[in-house]
Amino acid sequence: MYILHYAPDNASLIVRLALEELGQPFETRLVDRGVRAQDGAAYRRLHPNGLIPALETPDGPIFETGAILLWLSERHGAMAPQPGAPDRAAFLKWLFFTSNTLHADIRLHFYPESHAGAPDCVAAFAAATRARIAGHLALAEALAAGRPAWLRPETPSVLGLYLCGLLRWLALYPRGGTGWYNLTAFPALHALARGLETRPAARKAALAEGLGETVFSNPSLACPPEGSAT
Amino acid sequence: MYILHYAPDNASLIVRLALEELGQPFETRLVDRGVRAQDGAAYRRLHPNGLIPALETPDGPIFETGAILLWLSERHGAMAPQPGAPDRAAFLKWLFFTSNTLHADIRLHFYPESHAGAPDCVAAFAAATRARIAGHLALAEALAAGRPAWLRPETPSVLGLYLCGLLRWLALYPRGGTGWYNLTAFPALHALARGLETRPAARKAALAEGLGETVFSNPSLACPPEGSAT
Repeated sequence: MYILHYAPDNASLIVRLALEELGQPFETRLVDRGVRAQDGAAYRRLHPNGLIPALETPDGPIFETGAILLWLSERHGAMAPQPGAPDRAAFLKWLFFTSNTLHADIRLHFYPESHAGAPDCVAAFAAATRARIAGHLALAEALAAGRPAWLRPETPSVLGLYLCGLLRWLALYPRGGTGWYNLTAFPALHALARGLETRPAARKAALAEGLGETVFSNPSLACPPEGSAT
Repeated sequence: MYILHYAPDNASLIVRLALEELGQPFETRLVDRGVRAQDGAAYRRLHPNGLIPALETPDGPIFETGAILLWLSERHGAMAPQPGAPDRAAFLKWLFFTSNTLHADIRLHFYPESHAGAPDCVAAFAAATRARIAGHLALAEALAAGRPAWLRPETPSVLGLYLCGLLRWLALYPRGGTGWYNLTAFPALHALARGLETRPAARKAALAEGLGETVFSNPSLACPPEGSAT
């Protein structure tokens, strides 16, 4: 049985979505951001970097969203081109791009105060980061427009869920700093978001974390039954 | 036959090291940074983000250092815990950490002018980034000190090579901004670097790119037979 350490509407959501889509049973443990439980010794034993999510597995705790998604797809032989498949190379390069380029820059964008280095620099830093993210989204759009088998709404992959989670958060965060972002400017990503958000797995995850409707394509702030999103 | 698109002492070095260690034949194509060939249409067809490296394979071009390393390890069944192995989860989480946290922050650290947003902000941004990298190195040191089978100098893994490439560049770049970094403060990483740099694969790669001796543990600037490192 998996145990997902989560906070509502945090990166753990992507892992929850994947577990639901895979049909795997799992338990959840709330990481209480209100008391910064992610910095506590107990959580740091699971994830020494103190980030959310961590997933307890029969092979020990695993962290890093991209790693968890890839490992789950291998273990259950689903939701990704498997090792040896001809499209494994293409899948892996875009999974890493999503993790180390798109997601990494989105993290900078959400927490510019922690990264800019000085209060006077936050606005300029945030603007530079936003410009890069817009470029990354254009690349992801071109990818999705090519409709590879592992990035279509009708055949959900872990990468599709990963991208859609990021698309959701770009529409919501940082509070007051989302005006630049318009998903409909990226029609293939928009179609992916609309396709994946209506699936039973997404509806179940949305209910568990209080995400409402159109969770990827036109999201609203989470109103979770337990914990807090920020 | 693989074709590695490279620039001397760029991230492509890690892929070259892995190919040498795997004993796989490959050709190289210099990406001439002097004329910004990485931004040209021909290279962008291989790698739409214009970064180095890209590897041409029988399954098409692949980019992202972490993705290439993982794919090579799967294709040749070596240098990493394979899918299904009990330590696959641990390996993947640290591979993603190295890619999206350590390597991503190192990129910010090497090019602070492009990321800080304003000239007045470069110094503060660089200092904040350095502080984060120091924390990441402490986590990597704790990992290496535990001596997992896939991070020992005597059994080289793609992750070991990846880490050692990053350790090299931290000692060299940015020019004039490396005084904070001292590999001997991280004894397990230092031992990994010393162990891997003496292997025939590393010596061969060092010769090809003009890297001299002690390429990981105490490097000097590249003096390559063709192209330029920056």
